[in-house]
Amino acid sequence: MIIVMKHGAGEKAVQQVSDVLKEHGLGVHISNGSTATIIGVIGDKAKLSGVNLELMEGVDKCVPIMHSYKLASREICPQGRTVQVGDQVIGGQKLAMMAGPCAVESEEQVFAAARGVRQAGAAFLRGGAYKPRTSPYAFQGMEDEGYRLLRRAADAEGLKVVSEVISENQLDTAAKYCDMFQIGARNMQNFRLLRAVGRSGVPVLLKRGIASTVEEWLDAAEYIMSEGNYNVVLCERGIRTFETSTRNTLDISAVPVIKERSCLPVIVDPSHAAGKSAYILPLSLAAAAAGADGLIIEVHPNPKCALSDAAQQLTPQAYGELFEQVRRVAQAVGRTM
Amino acid sequence: MIIVMKHGAGEKAVQQVSDVLKEHGLGVHISNGSTATIIGVIGDKAKLSGVNLELMEGVDKCVPIMHSYKLASREICPQGRTVQVGDQVIGGQKLAMMAGPCAVESEEQVFAAARGVRQAGAAFLRGGAYKPRTSPYAFQGMEDEGYRLLRRAADAEGLKVVSEVISENQLDTAAKYCDMFQIGARNMQNFRLLRAVGRSGVPVLLKRGIASTVEEWLDAAEYIMSEGNYNVVLCERGIRTFETSTRNTLDISAVPVIKERSCLPVIVDPSHAAGKSAYILPLSLAAAAAGADGLIIEVHPNPKCALSDAAQQLTPQAYGELFEQVRRVAQAVGRTM
Amino acid sequence: MIIVMKHGAGEKAVQQVSDVLKEHGLGVHISNGSTATIIGVIGDKAKLSGVNLELMEGVDKCVPIMHSYKLASREICPQGRTVQVGDQVIGGQKLAMMAGPCAVESEEQVFAAARGVRQAGAAFLRGGAYKPRTSPYAFQGMEDEGYRLLRRAADAEGLKVVSEVISENQLDTAAKYCDMFQIGARNMQNFRLLRAVGRSGVPVLLKRGIASTVEEWLDAAEYIMSEGNYNVVLCERGIRTFETSTRNTLDISAVPVIKERSCLPVIVDPSHAAGKSAYILPLSLAAAAAGADGLIIEVHPNPKCALSDAAQQLTPQAYGELFEQVRRVAQAVGRTM
Amino acid sequence: MIIVMKHGAGEKAVQQVSDVLKEHGLGVHISNGSTATIIGVIGDKAKLSGVNLELMEGVDKCVPIMHSYKLASREICPQGRTVQVGDQVIGGQKLAMMAGPCAVESEEQVFAAARGVRQAGAAFLRGGAYKPRTSPYAFQGMEDEGYRLLRRAADAEGLKVVSEVISENQLDTAAKYCDMFQIGARNMQNFRLLRAVGRSGVPVLLKRGIASTVEEWLDAAEYIMSEGNYNVVLCERGIRTFETSTRNTLDISAVPVIKERSCLPVIVDPSHAAGKSAYILPLSLAAAAAGADGLIIEVHPNPKCALSDAAQQLTPQAYGELFEQVRRVAQAVGRTM
Repeated sequence: MIIVMKHGAGEKAVQQVSDVLKEHGLGVHISNGSTATIIGVIGDKAKLSGVNLELMEGVDKCVPIMHSYKLASREICPQGRTVQVGDQVIGGQKLAMMAGPCAVESEEQVFAAARGVRQAGAAFLRGGAYKPRTSPYAFQGMEDEGYRLLRRAADAEGLKVVSEVISENQLDTAAKYCDMFQIGARNMQNFRLLRAVGRSGVPVLLKRGIASTVEEWLDAAEYIMSEGNYNVVLCERGIRTFETSTRNTLDISAVPVIKERSCLPVIVDPSHAAGKSAYILPLSLAAAAAGADGLIIEVHPNPKCALSDAAQQLTPQAYGELFEQVRRVAQAVGRTM
Repeated sequence: MIIVMKHGAGEKAVQQVSDVLKEHGLGVHISNGSTATIIGVIGDKAKLSGVNLELMEGVDKCVPIMHSYKLASREICPQGRTVQVGDQVIGGQKLAMMAGPCAVESEEQVFAAARGVRQAGAAFLRGGAYKPRTSPYAFQGMEDEGYRLLRRAADAEGLKVVSEVISENQLDTAAKYCDMFQIGARNMQNFRLLRAVGRSGVPVLLKRGIASTVEEWLDAAEYIMSEGNYNVVLCERGIRTFETSTRNTLDISAVPVIKERSCLPVIVDPSHAAGKSAYILPLSLAAAAAGADGLIIEVHPNPKCALSDAAQQLTPQAYGELFEQVRRVAQAVGRTM
Repeated sequence: MIIVMKHGAGEKAVQQVSDVLKEHGLGVHISNGSTATIIGVIGDKAKLSGVNLELMEGVDKCVPIMHSYKLASREICPQGRTVQVGDQVIGGQKLAMMAGPCAVESEEQVFAAARGVRQAGAAFLRGGAYKPRTSPYAFQGMEDEGYRLLRRAADAEGLKVVSEVISENQLDTAAKYCDMFQIGARNMQNFRLLRAVGRSGVPVLLKRGIASTVEEWLDAAEYIMSEGNYNVVLCERGIRTFETSTRNTLDISAVPVIKERSCLPVIVDPSHAAGKSAYILPLSLAAAAAGADGLIIEVHPNPKCALSDAAQQLTPQAYGELFEQVRRVAQAVGRTM
Repeated sequence: MIIVMKHGAGEKAVQQVSDVLKEHGLGVHISNGSTATIIGVIGDKAKLSGVNLELMEGVDKCVPIMHSYKLASREICPQGRTVQVGDQVIGGQKLAMMAGPCAVESEEQVFAAARGVRQAGAAFLRGGAYKPRTSPYAFQGMEDEGYRLLRRAADAEGLKVVSEVISENQLDTAAKYCDMFQIGARNMQNFRLLRAVGRSGVPVLLKRGIASTVEEWLDAAEYIMSEGNYNVVLCERGIRTFETSTRNTLDISAVPVIKERSCLPVIVDPSHAAGKSAYILPLSLAAAAAGADGLIIEVHPNPKCALSDAAQQLTPQAYGELFEQVRRVAQAVGRTM
């Protein structure tokens, strides 16, 4: 951490700050600049818990230098982590392809979706059993029955199940049916839930909050990892901006930023970012080209009758065509499908 | 709802949409404009669950006309609601003044804060017992012991307790100590928690999510109200924007917007919006002038030693001075303290 | 400036950076932290023009400590500046009240507006003669004839004229009719125009760009001031965010932030921020309470027939009532009207 | 346009609105919904200039249905336009590759850059002669001498020149040296300048404003096209959001959105979006995969000594490697280089 003193702060103020730092076991380097004095703090700033340097006489601001996550950082694992989900590996050379309906609606629907998804070539079946919805009057999902249907459909096609969990109280049940837990964007900072999935040991797909910075996202991953569960995959799904022509703004740059800062795999969800099926193909190709480790895409056997997010779901046939086009781009950047 | 057909959509496409609407018991009005045909839908669009008009041939877009919340709307209660918390009323002529430390840290600290807050004239003691923090390594609060200290300190000074709840599992305990539950910004769309506080019947202070629109905020209030708990007070606490000179951007316009659209009282939290103690006074005055029903402000007996959010907490003395200045502005706009 | 070296950057890299700094006449302070080495740069970083430290081996990032504006800073004039416009002073104890139609539309309209504005008590007549509009097909203003009408109407009522300029080529003409030039939000970074109004010597009302930070806004003021024209008044008019219930989001915090960082007066434009006449009164009261040095408000003798921005213009009568309510709040915070 | 009446607005109010519409030669369709009456307006809403329906008794809001640009729309030219710049075509099957230094700094630098750019395979030399900079104290470019050097270097290598223009007064000079004018992000709504480049007939590269919606961007293109110059190429270069890990957030979705709504070619500038050279390659690949018609990239013979934007400029060698990787992705999506 660096402490910048106010223009005109006297020697006494600098001395007081310096004294406080030393009392807490920290090293101090003072630079008397032409316009301001700067104090470099050497050591772990956690030692300063309970000391508020910003409020001390003469202090202008404190500039943090290090990020707060450690286990999720690139430094701790420069070669990057892979996450194993059954016999599938996420974060290696092969892209992880996840697909399925926004919400599980019926046995027929989820089996048809699973079939289409598997025929296209994907290895993961996604589907919402518990649906957090903006309005209390919207369809909230089939709940545990949804999990059961997903499991059966996935088993019938040899797929892994990825599904959202929304409460620490449901994890035991969810773990019976899911191979991977999804934490949705709205719950990215539901720290109780993060710790609970951390303790569960089940692989986690952590979606980025709609207005979360990359740093906050990695701090959220750190919550899970700090409980001993390193099987975390990040998922970029669009952020909220002023632009309204898409549902959210896909932050494609987050892919290389994550690769630089974090050891965790990162996949992309073009469906929620775009909010419109016509944009899903170009965004999927962009994600593969940018180095994403996989894609999670909404596929519904009959999008026109979907109970939620209908406008952004693909048919199995359109997904099959997308799959082949993504394959070509993946090969162009040295990845496989 | 209005359905806008694509430029060039033929009669057949219009007919198909019209047929689907009628099959679902809805009325239809067709306007053949010079550039596009527009279909007005008459009746409750909830009847369309499972039908995705946007994906039908020739449909350009669907424009919703009505908001999705009902109980939280102004129409349902044009004179506005008041919320009773013990002998205190929020939403009447008198401003509700809430204050206290960001986090409960010790018996001494919370009793000193309570004394200062009461001496200044406030009626509510706020304080965090459970602290959701961005990093897992930051101080997470004194938890249940924090609630107990808040209760004892509040009782000693004749104050009401407002404190954050973060899990549906803790509500029974929290209800023993708190007069009002706070839902924090990060949990504004934790729908499980919203429903649970709705069932609790305890008055709720619902903070706006950092990137939530006013409409989403009112939908969140609707979750609580739909469980039968109408004692909801909204709290504007700043939104996330590109500007970095303040921690968040206080959306002062949200006050008149809420007054126009909703029947619920709305208070302002200038501490989290500003993130810097020097800005809290002007923002408090602005909130009172704009018609807010109260203020919630961080007050700590010794901000320089606060374990969290030190830079934005006021001393009891500074809060006392703020209280008097707010009183003058409140009087200028016909309110009391 | 502070240079943060990468984790693991060797001594040689630090030495190379240090050598470059010294070669350019700058002092160097090196702090060997536990996780990273930090180099404090002492002296004017302008000496580094043509050197890109961020690209040097081992450098992680450069953190600027000082802002780039000097004349617009608070340090250079701690007591704050006032701006004289004829016999009116902006930035003193008295609020500067500016009002008038969005666009000048006719002699009758502008004279009626001027009369209403003066009767309410305002001292400045605002009105658009050149109107930058998003679409080329929208009304673009009466141009020079608009300036002439403003001047005549203002003279008839004893008011000062504030009007927008959009091209360096029109300043000579505009200076004949205007007492104060307005730079609109879209031109806040039209640096040619900023320099030209700087050279003109005419007082300038500098609106904040719709997505400009406070720092960029002050840099824009610096462009004008660096040409010798210190008569700059800042105008907060709302920023672009994700929220759509208002046209823009009024950043009320910008008022105390500007007061802290800059010596320049700052006024508020609630009309463009709100975009809806019902919100203008509460936002005006908030601005006065927060310490703004004045208000610029759209007033039209017949808003229902305005050629632009109709939804946000007040009638002269509504403005008169607003004026009296603002007066009460201004008095509550020690200002006059 | 659709007019939504307030809940409870009576028949008289509906009648008045209807009368006004008919008086102005517009058709009217009234839908009496269960919660609100909706009025569909049939005909060109330009006829309503001077009428402000939103202020009429009983009107809740007016919802525009059509966009305001026409010449820039997809409808007017469903197959899409190409723009000819000398012997080069932008918007066809071949990607337009533009590269060169942020700023022209010297003869040696621009000739070295031109050579590297041509050797890599690009056809356009970009370079800033006039540099709009946030601070008045930063390097402002070599101005006309910069144009001359660009021309000579481009001619030596057989390249086209793209360079920014910042004032209507300089266009005659600029036209002598440039094959294509660039309008920078800060000037996207400098309507005087847009009209002037429209009259010039010179092909225009129109960068998106940092906080401009796609609709505003197309309206800006319409300004140029409405003067008869249809040779407009759009350039996405990142928008301002809350995320700070990149300089701006590249809105990759803008590529398919533009393709859907507009007939104009669109290229991508990953350099300004990323602000960091390490991210330029993945963003370039993403842009090619998403369907962009070209890339404009900053290349400097010696980035470590660049006078501006050093952190985001590539060496000619790195650009050569990028060129080859982009070629592979372009081929995977059916484009050529």
